[in-house]
Amino acid sequence: MNLVKHGDIQFTELQVGVKRRILSYTDDIMAVELSIAQDVIGPVHSHPHAQCSFVVSGTFVFTVNGQEFEVSEGDTIAFERNEVHGCICKSSGTLIDIFSPMRKEFLSKI
Amino acid sequence: MNLVKHGDIQFTELQVGVKRRILSYTDDIMAVELSIAQDVIGPVHSHPHAQCSFVVSGTFVFTVNGQEFEVSEGDTIAFERNEVHGCICKSSGTLIDIFSPMRKEFLSKI
Repeated sequence: MNLVKHGDIQFTELQVGVKRRILSYTDDIMAVELSIAQDVIGPVHSHPHAQCSFVVSGTFVFTVNGQEFEVSEGDTIAFERNEVHGCICKSSGTLIDIFSPMRKEFLSKI
Repeated sequence: MNLVKHGDIQFTELQVGVKRRILSYTDDIMAVELSIAQDVIGPVHSHPHAQCSFVVSGTFVFTVNGQEFEVSEGDTIAFERNEVHGCICKSSGTLIDIFSPMRKEFLSKI
């Protein structure tokens, strides 16, 4: 079991307009919070981890297999392992990304 | 890829005070939303799926291995596969539970 109280963790700025904080995780699952500013572009990429993104606030356009999908508060989008996806922020907001298994490489960037 | 627009799905009442709607999922990962009323008790149980719960609102007390952990807005708690856990709702609210792999048995209760 791993409990993370929201007030106990700090954001790490990954690039201008993108802050991330790592929420709770085990070897098998990891939640991270991303605070993203309007007009930030997350280039298309892939990873062997399954992913589900929950939109807390803001508006985002995900690109998957060349198609665009707009999401906003309450929407969720799940990706297959190794599925190529990108994201453009249309209106500043927060995403909760959950990965399985956890993303070990994130721990070196706290 | 599986996209679920929040406005397109309906809650299923599982018991008095507990409503669930299934959000996006693939074979490997599934997000579900639970709306839970104050004083509802979720008995201790386990499952072979890894789980991470994100507290959108409300206050909950999780019981894990006989210990109690109170969580509220923004907190996250992750469970190992087969880890025994239960939950009591202290103040009505919403949880986003993410499982890996997905919970096939949930689909028969929509």
